[in-house]
Amino acid sequence: MKIEILTTGDELMSGLTRDGNFQWAGEILTALGFDVAYHTTVGDDMIRLKSVFKNAKNRADAVIVTGGLGPTPDDLTIEVAAEFLNVGLELNQPALDMMTERFRKIGRTVSETNMKQVYLPKGSTTLLNKWGTAPGFSCEVENTVFFFLPGVPKEFRAMMDEYVLPELEKRNPQMKKSYMRLVKTFGLPESEVAQKLEGIEREGIRLGYRAHFREIHLRVSSFADTENEAQSLMSEFLNEVDSRLGRYVFTTEGEMLEEVVGALLKQHEMTLATAESCTGGLLSHRMTNVPGSSSCFLEGVVSYSNEAKSKILGVPMALIDSYGAVSAQVVEAMAKGVKELAGSDIGIGISGIAGPGGGTPEKPVGTVYIGLYSETKGAVSHKFHFHGTREEIKLVTVLNALDLIRQSLLNNV
Amino acid sequence: MKIEILTTGDELMSGLTRDGNFQWAGEILTALGFDVAYHTTVGDDMIRLKSVFKNAKNRADAVIVTGGLGPTPDDLTIEVAAEFLNVGLELNQPALDMMTERFRKIGRTVSETNMKQVYLPKGSTTLLNKWGTAPGFSCEVENTVFFFLPGVPKEFRAMMDEYVLPELEKRNPQMKKSYMRLVKTFGLPESEVAQKLEGIEREGIRLGYRAHFREIHLRVSSFADTENEAQSLMSEFLNEVDSRLGRYVFTTEGEMLEEVVGALLKQHEMTLATAESCTGGLLSHRMTNVPGSSSCFLEGVVSYSNEAKSKILGVPMALIDSYGAVSAQVVEAMAKGVKELAGSDIGIGISGIAGPGGGTPEKPVGTVYIGLYSETKGAVSHKFHFHGTREEIKLVTVLNALDLIRQSLLNNV
Repeated sequence: MKIEILTTGDELMSGLTRDGNFQWAGEILTALGFDVAYHTTVGDDMIRLKSVFKNAKNRADAVIVTGGLGPTPDDLTIEVAAEFLNVGLELNQPALDMMTERFRKIGRTVSETNMKQVYLPKGSTTLLNKWGTAPGFSCEVENTVFFFLPGVPKEFRAMMDEYVLPELEKRNPQMKKSYMRLVKTFGLPESEVAQKLEGIEREGIRLGYRAHFREIHLRVSSFADTENEAQSLMSEFLNEVDSRLGRYVFTTEGEMLEEVVGALLKQHEMTLATAESCTGGLLSHRMTNVPGSSSCFLEGVVSYSNEAKSKILGVPMALIDSYGAVSAQVVEAMAKGVKELAGSDIGIGISGIAGPGGGTPEKPVGTVYIGLYSETKGAVSHKFHFHGTREEIKLVTVLNALDLIRQSLLNNV
Repeated sequence: MKIEILTTGDELMSGLTRDGNFQWAGEILTALGFDVAYHTTVGDDMIRLKSVFKNAKNRADAVIVTGGLGPTPDDLTIEVAAEFLNVGLELNQPALDMMTERFRKIGRTVSETNMKQVYLPKGSTTLLNKWGTAPGFSCEVENTVFFFLPGVPKEFRAMMDEYVLPELEKRNPQMKKSYMRLVKTFGLPESEVAQKLEGIEREGIRLGYRAHFREIHLRVSSFADTENEAQSLMSEFLNEVDSRLGRYVFTTEGEMLEEVVGALLKQHEMTLATAESCTGGLLSHRMTNVPGSSSCFLEGVVSYSNEAKSKILGVPMALIDSYGAVSAQVVEAMAKGVKELAGSDIGIGISGIAGPGGGTPEKPVGTVYIGLYSETKGAVSHKFHFHGTREEIKLVTVLNALDLIRQSLLNNV
């Protein structure tokens, strides 16, 4: 079954809005085993819209159209669809009722402009929109099914899940049941992940790689005749991935690294405090993105200056003078200092040169030390040489710091 | 002149890579006054590639193809282009020489696989790639010009600038000279920006709106017969924008808000320190993203707990007990405390409820106080009620804090 995704809107053509719907739909449909064959984007123009509808009908079995269902004059999709189908428009009462009720709740009434949205092509199937105002619809043209959905991402995704995916599956009774997972790894380059997974391919498993900055993500789908089989295929496969990649896998459920660290801290009933220099607060920002992090994240200090390292964190000035602010000795003292200041179980200290200025021959831009101090294990620290822009060096440093906490809680370091 | 952008690659169809090239090219080409009419994406498949080439030839005057010029078997663009043009491939010596030299510098030799990249369709014009390995090429088919460029964004953009844009302009001698600027505003919703700019449209100016979270960006292009005229049209227009939007405009050069704040601090020779609660270090992270920020950003404290607010920042416990941690009194004391701790000119204090938990009837999720303390002006603070997810509330808080610093340095508050 060949699928075409057709996204519409002048704001996409002029680059003023990013087309997130295509990427999202492409990933889901591919993972479910569909053939996403073509993707077209076109502006709000009657003639061009009609011509791409025609093109899509000739080359695809299912076409998913997004956008152009709003109330303004540049929303042309319904009108063009009716012309393309060679039918008139008719009032759709359930859609009007839903819109009236929705507006009533926020103290508004349905205006004449909004009425345009509930006159749909005759003979089409209405797809009621429980997540926004614009109803969608579907219709059949010479063996090709068209779905017309709103462009608002939240509404588009909900209506894909509610209407489009079940309908596509119904039209493919021979299609297997599938099961999806998102595995994320940190600490290995993509080539090494691929090498460690060499020969892991097997019947009923589809594997897609995606490099997400320094993380490598694996989109895994399993296919079988029954859901149970697909699920057990998946867990066998994930066991094999785990035995090959081990500590480098931080989630098989698509979580962020900081969510995993937050959950581990709560599980161990431990608390964290951070002392950051070159990362400037990015580590504490990422940790505090996790809802409920106030129970495990106590305090952060961004000590850009040597004075702050000494005054707030109690790092001896003599240590900074002897080894420099960017050194194993200083990050370990920062980690211990912030741990004691906050009364936490674990302290992290980070110091480095994010650039573009500030590098020296001995300590070039990208030199970073990360230290961890815990009551039970004492101090550990690692030296890194990172490459990239200032923001990239900050980010890769924070990922390594998060992973150091994770490995420490897992007793790997 | 109708332009089609054609992006290729299985990784785009399966959503594992985001298509940034289309958005970038769409924005630049539209701003320059071209008609970006169609955009197509297709996977690495001979038949489909050939059919979309044909489609594009029939409906566009210029076609920009990206991707598929690499050395691996799924890179099919050159082969398909040759078939489509009905010509053979021939070795392009300048492209080979450039590749050989490039590889020599990193101690590699050109392998047989790489040789594939320098056999280009006979009769095409080679577009040498100074930014990467894969050369591009262009050719003419029945009045439609095709440009074939690599998919790597850095190389794609450089080659657009170097080859494609000048060639498109040459082919449109009647086209006006143009000039582009990116204006960014903060503090007004899109509808109010639009209302204040009502009737500002004029001959020779094109204006595109883009909502970028809570910032509204205006992509402005001016068109005239000469560059000088285009430039003076632009400065007249920007003056008018300035007189209508005034303090809400923070840049006409596309800078980030933190860059503007960093530059203002340096200009006034003033320094900053921050005390953050609910934003968890995002403010200090954003400020320290600016290269050279160590000269104006001294210290940050992330004081999640009341103990930290009291112990490190010297906020009296009695103040916290009387007014609560989320109050004007406490953020002003935090701002003053961190200013004194760091010895900076300005201190910022932030406290609020980012959610999803922690709200109360008096202080629901989204309640945030931002305080600023400076030696000369004393303390100011503002109360906000934000909506959104935890991360959105953190982000909008930080934007408001940055803007408060900016307005204070401009003597608007």
